[in-house]
This record gives sequence, structure tokens and C-alpha cells, in this order.
Amino acid sequence: MNGTGIGTASWVMERCDDLTRHSSRPDALERVYLSPEHSAANMAVRAWMLDAGLDTETDAAGNLWGRRAADGTPQRPGTAGEPALVLGSHLDTVPDAGRYDGMLGVVLAIAVAHRLRDVPLPFALEVVGFSDEEGTRFGKALLGSCAASGQWDPAWWDQADADGVTLRDAFLQFGLAPDRVGDAARRPEDLVGYLEAHIEQGPVLESANLPLGYVTSIAGARRFVLTITGEARHAGGTPFSRRRDALVAAAHLVTRIEELAKATDCLATVGDIRVEPGAVNVIPGLAELTLDLRGRTDSGRDTLWEQISAVGHDIAQERGVKLEVVETHRAPSTACAERMQAAVAAGIAEATRSTGSGTAGTTTLGLWSPAGHDGMAMDAVTDVGMLFLRCRDGISHHPDEHVETEDVAVALDAFTEAVLALARDHEETR
Amino acid sequence: MNGTGIGTASWVMERCDDLTRHSSRPDALERVYLSPEHSAANMAVRAWMLDAGLDTETDAAGNLWGRRAADGTPQRPGTAGEPALVLGSHLDTVPDAGRYDGMLGVVLAIAVAHRLRDVPLPFALEVVGFSDEEGTRFGKALLGSCAASGQWDPAWWDQADADGVTLRDAFLQFGLAPDRVGDAARRPEDLVGYLEAHIEQGPVLESANLPLGYVTSIAGARRFVLTITGEARHAGGTPFSRRRDALVAAAHLVTRIEELAKATDCLATVGDIRVEPGAVNVIPGLAELTLDLRGRTDSGRDTLWEQISAVGHDIAQERGVKLEVVETHRAPSTACAERMQAAVAAGIAEATRSTGSGTAGTTTLGLWSPAGHDGMAMDAVTDVGMLFLRCRDGISHHPDEHVETEDVAVALDAFTEAVLALARDHEETR
Repeated sequence: MNGTGIGTASWVMERCDDLTRHSSRPDALERVYLSPEHSAANMAVRAWMLDAGLDTETDAAGNLWGRRAADGTPQRPGTAGEPALVLGSHLDTVPDAGRYDGMLGVVLAIAVAHRLRDVPLPFALEVVGFSDEEGTRFGKALLGSCAASGQWDPAWWDQADADGVTLRDAFLQFGLAPDRVGDAARRPEDLVGYLEAHIEQGPVLESANLPLGYVTSIAGARRFVLTITGEARHAGGTPFSRRRDALVAAAHLVTRIEELAKATDCLATVGDIRVEPGAVNVIPGLAELTLDLRGRTDSGRDTLWEQISAVGHDIAQERGVKLEVVETHRAPSTACAERMQAAVAAGIAEATRSTGSGTAGTTTLGLWSPAGHDGMAMDAVTDVGMLFLRCRDGISHHPDEHVETEDVAVALDAFTEAVLALARDHEETR
Repeated sequence: MNGTGIGTASWVMERCDDLTRHSSRPDALERVYLSPEHSAANMAVRAWMLDAGLDTETDAAGNLWGRRAADGTPQRPGTAGEPALVLGSHLDTVPDAGRYDGMLGVVLAIAVAHRLRDVPLPFALEVVGFSDEEGTRFGKALLGSCAASGQWDPAWWDQADADGVTLRDAFLQFGLAPDRVGDAARRPEDLVGYLEAHIEQGPVLESANLPLGYVTSIAGARRFVLTITGEARHAGGTPFSRRRDALVAAAHLVTRIEELAKATDCLATVGDIRVEPGAVNVIPGLAELTLDLRGRTDSGRDTLWEQISAVGHDIAQERGVKLEVVETHRAPSTACAERMQAAVAAGIAEATRSTGSGTAGTTTLGLWSPAGHDGMAMDAVTDVGMLFLRCRDGISHHPDEHVETEDVAVALDAFTEAVLALARDHEETR
């Protein structure tokens, strides 16, 4: 873990630093789907894949793939061959992002591939850098892994970004052919599994004083756009009795959403709000807000939504405004496959035993992920497993996102051991 | 009131319709300070002033003036002569405006001047079309009447419009000399008073079933930008105990602002809000909101602000966020002069008695104006009075702005009678 060459923790950390230069903003990290920065990041990561002994290919949805054959020779992704174990994560970011969410998992996968370059495996090994997990640009998350798992929905083509550019036009501008997107779909028979390392994005591992944990399930989010329509009127001339203020109604709903969610084990977040006309001296006639709901179980999450919806309609009726709801995203929770959980847990146990990390006497920690991940899409075509790394103060989606190099070193060992555990498992069961 | 010639209600209504053609937008009314439309509207109104027996002049700030001497002969504005009673309002608009806010008061003043063209008065009579009341283009309101009242601030020259054009350059483009703006200032000794007719922009007169009311005072607004800083974190990974959600704090404040204001006779409006980073899956780290406060009295308004500020800081402390406050605008309330109130009230009493309008047995209604008007600036150089006309549903700053021709007819009578009442008053006291 003290070296700086490819395959070491220091190398991984430096590559995560390197990738921050590919940003649409000089003062912050923002890299969205099908942007010039997406292309540049793919180019940079491609070089590291080649160095790790992988041949590379960008697929029909802008995802970057690297591959070696079972015997360790580089092999063009997309060619016929042995079924592959896929390691990876995503290369896109939220606005004003940290440098580890997604990128760490891709770079760490490359480092593991490098470590195993001379090790024959019973399956091909692939590394993927998914092109869109966050959904920052087009509102719809997991576009990259939906393409890779054959779940692309043609209804998405007309979705537009903030500048009015449709997904279709963005494909063309990036040099991709929209009518070829189906070529990105992987077949279940060509896959052994999908394994992703990711920062926890929460405080559980830190609180437990553990560098790593294995993921038991990924909670599915439901996302909504709530539009409240009142009446825009002169702020001076309109007494309260005549107001139908869309923002005050929205504010009541926002406070109640937090109260309702706090009483459950679910999470609810209003991440954005805008009002029209948005003038200092005009009562807002319209307020539009986003809502993100997550729960340990889908049923708990759905019950919370029913409560929020009922309260929202009550507020609307009381205040003479109209509430309209559009569900923009719905993903069921995804269970990590037992064999993938076992392999990741075995890798963690091996790595923390050998390095002395972890707390003596504790069992390996399994935890659920309130955040969404590419595995939710990949679950449609193969078994999914995840390794979580402790991150400082649970902060993510923020420039202060931080992981310790020491934890990355343990994660490299654990992830490598997890691949080897899957290899043993694969040998035994075929 | 049934005629259509100059000086009638129908003529007034048609002239308000005519002025809508002078707009920067084909589909809506928008006419801002120092625009080509401003120039065109001045030209059109100038012709009506000439027809009403007034000589005209555009002053050094783009305000349009018409004047007759005490004996009724047209007289060039800006020349020495008897002190003048000024009637008028403004000719600029908000974006997507109605056709009466401002314009009705100018056209109605011209109609009154026409009615009185053969009537000797103890003072000169002037009509003004102020060039900027709304502040739409440069953010600063009352530019026209500030120039006319000698309150021009050289700091304004560098303020720019949305296209980056400074006020100085806009003066030059309009054909005005910035260094001559002081010439627009009127001297108190040259003025008898300033009388303005305006739609109420509120529902009080409609609720009282009265066509007209006299204004007791114009409330001054205070405006603030409130910035709440919390912490942007991942919506999935952050339990409620670890959140410092700027939007939820802002939402609590917005609901409390309404509660606090409702308990007073003040108005408080949060007209705009924005959050950062503004992503569906990120807890807002920053929320910025505007606050507009108006009160019947300055002290009442200021007490409300103290309450809001205290509650805001309490919420900030409870929720671990920071509240910062910037005051962006502050105008004291303007009391209408007793003799101007009395003259307008007398005019209303005379007009409603003679036409049978109004409700039998009710006294003439005095009301305060929560909205700002040119009188706030003119109060620095002369006594101010205002006549309010009922408008439908209190709607203003909107294409649906509407007044009834019948109400305009009564207003014409009342405004004419108010001038005559001031003439009698002037005779008696000099």
C-alpha cells in the first residue's frame, strides 16, 4: 500500500484527483452525460485501462469498457468470448461534486485488474465506467447502465436538458447514433456478475469504526415533481385573504414532508424549488419542487408517499391552490445476490485480517444503501454485489467528499480478494 | 359620460387602449424607461396634451410635461410663471403589464385639463407623464419622479439593464444629456401640489362597492434578501440527524413570515426563492429568498421585520444553519397632505352625489396604498394627494387589469372637482 505505481492506493487517489480537471466549471467539478468533459474523462480513463492490460471500447451509449480474457490477454469488449465478471462504477457527477462518488469505483476496478493481470481466472474480467448514473443533465438517472442492461426506453429521447437540448441531439453531438443504442445491451449469458466499489455516502461505517462494508440491498428511490399553482398578484395590493400564494403552500408542504419522513425509517428530500414569476414584488403564482423518497423497504417508502400526497392535497385545498404530481423516477429496491454478498464479505474479512484494519471481535458489516447505484439497472441482466468504503463524515455530492488513502488500500485488497473468491466459487459450481 | 370626445370616459379608455401599441413585445405590453417605446408613447401623449390646450416639453429625464397658465392659455413647461398644480402618473410598465397602471392617471389628467381649459384657476395647471415609476429596466424604481423632485443620485448612472446597457448610455441613446439631468428638478416654490389618479391595485374598493377612494398614505416598502446556508449532502446517504437542510429551514421561515404578518396590518411577501445546488438528489446547502414588507405605518412594518428577523435566527439556531440578511430597498411611508386628502375626498363626494354612484349612507372611503407611487418622490418638493379607482378583482401588473368605463366617468368628475376644491382652498389661504 505504500507504492505509487498503478495498482496502489496512492495511484488510485491521484487518478481521482486527475479526473477533476475534466469539468464544465473552472471552480467546481461538474461532468454530465454526453458533454465534452464526459468525452475527455473517457479518454483519460481509457489510457489507464490500456496500462492495466485491458483492451477498450466505448459502447453505443457512451459507457467506457475495458476487458481481458480469462487467460489475462487484452480482449476487445463486445467480442465473443468467455462470460465476464464486470467491475466498475460511473464517471459522471452531480453539480459541484466530490471526486470519489463513482470515479473511485472505476479507478479502483482498474487497479484491481492491473493486480490480476497475470492471474488466470475462470472468466473474462471487464471494467466499466458508466456514462450516466446521477441523471444530472436529463433528469433521468442510470441512463448508462440502463443502456448496458437493455432497458433503454425510447420515450427518453425527447427529454431535454436545461438548455433545451434533447437526449437525441446530445447523442448526435457526442458522435453516437441514437438508433444504435440497443447495441450497448449486454446479454445475461455473457455476464458472471457486476461488482461495484463505492464510497458509503453515509455515516454508518465511520460510526462503526470500520473501513469497509458489504451491501445487502440498494434502496429504490421514487422521485416526483410537485407543481403548485396559485395566482400571481401584486405583493402590495393583495391582502392575505385574497392570496393564493404558491410558495407559502409549498413551504407548508416542505415542512410536513420532513415531519412525516422523520417518523419512519425512510428518507425524503426536496432538493430543488423554483417559483414563477419570481419577482420581489409579485406573489408567486407557481411553485415547482422535486421530491426524492427512499426507504429500506419499498412498501415503507410507498406508504410515506401516500401520506405526503394526502397532506399535499389537504394543504392545496386549504389554501385554494392546485397540486399536480408527476412521478419522474421509480426504482424497486435491489437485493444484492447472496453469492456476491458472500464474496465481498470474504474479501473484506481477508483484507482486514491481513492488514489489521477493522475492530477486533466485530463481524464483517453488511448495510443497505439508501443511495441508488448502477447495480440497480445491472440487476436486470446479472447478479450484483457492492463494496462500501468509509467516507469522512458521510459527506457526498459535495467538494468535501473524502476517503482516506489507508481505506482505499484495504479496499484494493478486499476487492481483489472478492474477485478471487468469485473465481473459486465459479470453478466449484460450473 | 356618454360622449366619446376628448374629456370623456370613453376617450380615456380608448387612449389607454391606444398606448398598448407602444410595446417592446408583440404579444404583451412592456414599455420601459428610455426605450423606443417610451419615446413613441411620449409622442402620442404629447399630441393629446396639445389637443387639451397644454403646451408641452420633455424634461431632462424623459418625463413629458404639459402646461397651461392660470388664465387657461397654453404655456411652455419650464418657463417662469405662476406656481402649478401638477396632475399625472407614469407611462412606463412592468413586463406583461395591464394597460391602466400609470397610463390611466396620465390620460385622465389630460381629460381633466381639457374640461377645465376655459376655466380660470388661481394657479397654473400641469400634466406629467413620468418616464419611470416601475423600475423595470434598471431595478431602481421612481427614476422619473426622482429626477423631477431633485433627488437624482449620480450613483445610479452605472446601473445596467439586463443587456448590460448602463443608465448613462441609455440616456445618450434616448437623446438626453446625462450631465443635464439636474435641469429636470422642480422647485417647491413653483408647485402647488401633485395629484395622481391610479387604479387601486387591490380589492378594497371593490369589496366596499365603491368606485373611488382617497389615499391617506403610501406605504414604503422594505426589501431584503435572506440567505440561509446549511450543508449540501447526498439525499440518500444522510440521515435526518445529520442534515442541515437550507430549504427546510427556509420553508419554516416562509410559513412563519405569513403567520406573523397576518397578525398585523402589514403585508409580507416572499416573491422568489432559489436553492443550491438545486439537484433532485442533493440536500439543499443554500436557500436564498426575497422578502417584501409593507405596512400602514413605518413603525408597524419595522416591528414586523424585527419579529421575522428574530424568528429567522431562532430557526437558524435550531437547525444548525446560518441566516444572513441584506436590506436591498427601504422607503419611508409618505403621508398624503391633509389639504390634498380633503380636496380629493370633496371631489369624490361631489362626483358620487351628482352621479348617484357609491352606496347611500356610506362616508367617502380613505385608504392607504400598500403599493408605491410617484407621489413618494414628489413629496420631497410638494404636497401629494391621490385618487384611487376600483379595479376588477384587485388585479394589477397583469394583462387582466381592468377598470369599468363607468368608474372612469365618475373619476373624471371627482378629479375635476378635486382641482376646483384646491382652487377654492388656494384662493382662501393666499
